Amino acid sequence: MSLDITNDTNWFTEACDECGSAFSLKIKGKLHEETSDFQKIEVFETTHYGKLMVIDGFTMLSTEDNFLYHEMMTHPALYSHPQPKNVLVIGGGDCGTLKEVLKHPEVNKAHQVEIDERVTRLSEKYFPELCSSNADPRAELHFADGIQWVKDAKPGDYDIIIVDSTDPIGPAEGLFNETFYRSCKNILGDKGILVQQSESPIAHVNLIREMHKAMAAAGFEFTHTMDFPQPLYPSGWWSATMASNTQFGEGRIEDVKSKDFETLYYSELKHRAAMETPTYLSIKLK
Amino acid sequence: MSLDITNDTNWFTEACDECGSAFSLKIKGKLHEETSDFQKIEVFETTHYGKLMVIDGFTMLSTEDNFLYHEMMTHPALYSHPQPKNVLVIGGGDCGTLKEVLKHPEVNKAHQVEIDERVTRLSEKYFPELCSSNADPRAELHFADGIQWVKDAKPGDYDIIIVDSTDPIGPAEGLFNETFYRSCKNILGDKGILVQQSESPIAHVNLIREMHKAMAAAGFEFTHTMDFPQPLYPSGWWSATMASNTQFGEGRIEDVKSKDFETLYYSELKHRAAMETPTYLSIKLK
Repeated sequence: MSLDITNDTNWFTEACDECGSAFSLKIKGKLHEETSDFQKIEVFETTHYGKLMVIDGFTMLSTEDNFLYHEMMTHPALYSHPQPKNVLVIGGGDCGTLKEVLKHPEVNKAHQVEIDERVTRLSEKYFPELCSSNADPRAELHFADGIQWVKDAKPGDYDIIIVDSTDPIGPAEGLFNETFYRSCKNILGDKGILVQQSESPIAHVNLIREMHKAMAAAGFEFTHTMDFPQPLYPSGWWSATMASNTQFGEGRIEDVKSKDFETLYYSELKHRAAMETPTYLSIKLK
Repeated sequence: MSLDITNDTNWFTEACDECGSAFSLKIKGKLHEETSDFQKIEVFETTHYGKLMVIDGFTMLSTEDNFLYHEMMTHPALYSHPQPKNVLVIGGGDCGTLKEVLKHPEVNKAHQVEIDERVTRLSEKYFPELCSSNADPRAELHFADGIQWVKDAKPGDYDIIIVDSTDPIGPAEGLFNETFYRSCKNILGDKGILVQQSESPIAHVNLIREMHKAMAAAGFEFTHTMDFPQPLYPSGWWSATMASNTQFGEGRIEDVKSKDFETLYYSELKHRAAMETPTYLSIKLK
């Protein structure tokens, strides 16, 4: 039956006005709240989704469902590259993406550049399972401005750049434009791939369209939006957009079958499905 | 930014207490409300999802996103069967599933058995695009009790049974148990397939587990749960479960590439991906 959550304070609600939708999680209590130098960070204990991190009122991740996002932000891009040795994660302070990156034995170096150290410190406390690879000798955690980082890095420094940021307002606004993409392109190797979370394929089509345009304007010849389920984010249907100067093809997809690490959603077949844009989105992007 | 929907009456909210989550759509107004012989039916105009039908407080479908559900309820099952001539839809009063079924030239006969004629009459008015195939000479719309219908039908009457019902409480409760599945099995041909909406793979694992058990107890040798995005339903990640006495394999999946009708989400690759249970769900179902 429909419950009256309007008179029940035991719910956390993120309303997305421009999507015309809202998503709520039932909570047992608030575990933490602080205002860092960059944003307000809250951590809740939910009834069904484990712990929940919220930044500036936006749900970031939950214990229960973050695997969908983290796996799909990482593995399709890494398996699309012939030899992903050097990986840069911009944002990603919860370290979930970093953990997925480090599952790949091909990776020699993984730099995580998160602007807000407090996100990582709180993740270590409340989402320790996502931080279990932080001591990997291949990993370097930097707390710095990702925009400046990509400006300062050198051509060929990275094979993969994963932009695992908050929504394109606030601190992450500068991560969604041609100038930033151009910096990324400059520091990627020949077959380099940029992948960025790109919101909902049903609720944020305009943003996705603008991303493709800006990536193309920055000199990327090929762009592709992948779709996957993600309960916590508006509409529950989410996307990541990749850009490269090498056509996205089979890559090392045959190797997925024999990968020696576990994933909870990602697989060869989910990879292949995500590499095909749904007709719905193709039509909307025209 | 986070909006305060608690003090804004322009939102329709379905809270799923047993999921610990709620989903809200912003509405422009209510177009219709009635209490039929079976349930309360409401139709809203939303800001971003077109029209919204709500039954007993549960969101049923929206103009914008129903294609995901209707396509995934229909095409994987029909393409898994060598020759789906006779199809039965139980429920499905909005006629969206029926429309997808009738896209298949192999289908000779499609019976829709909806208990509540008012759902169909309101769909004809508010979702006419879903009812555009209702006059197809292969279609028969019956307004009757689906449980009785499957009891009365004869062995081999159907190749495919699609149970497109509301949640397993209220009028649809009898559609989620061994007795009903046994009746379905009795009227399916040798290679017949039963497919039923089976709620969220993250929020309703217990229900899915019970469905598999009940389908097996009813004599179905093979069962499989498919997953797909569906914004309108709890968690935005939804599923349908199939049962058959023929192993689900390639079926006619190669024909999907050359199908002569349009789908907005369904494709050969989405089909293949849905035929593989995500590890997350496999573990939970153990």
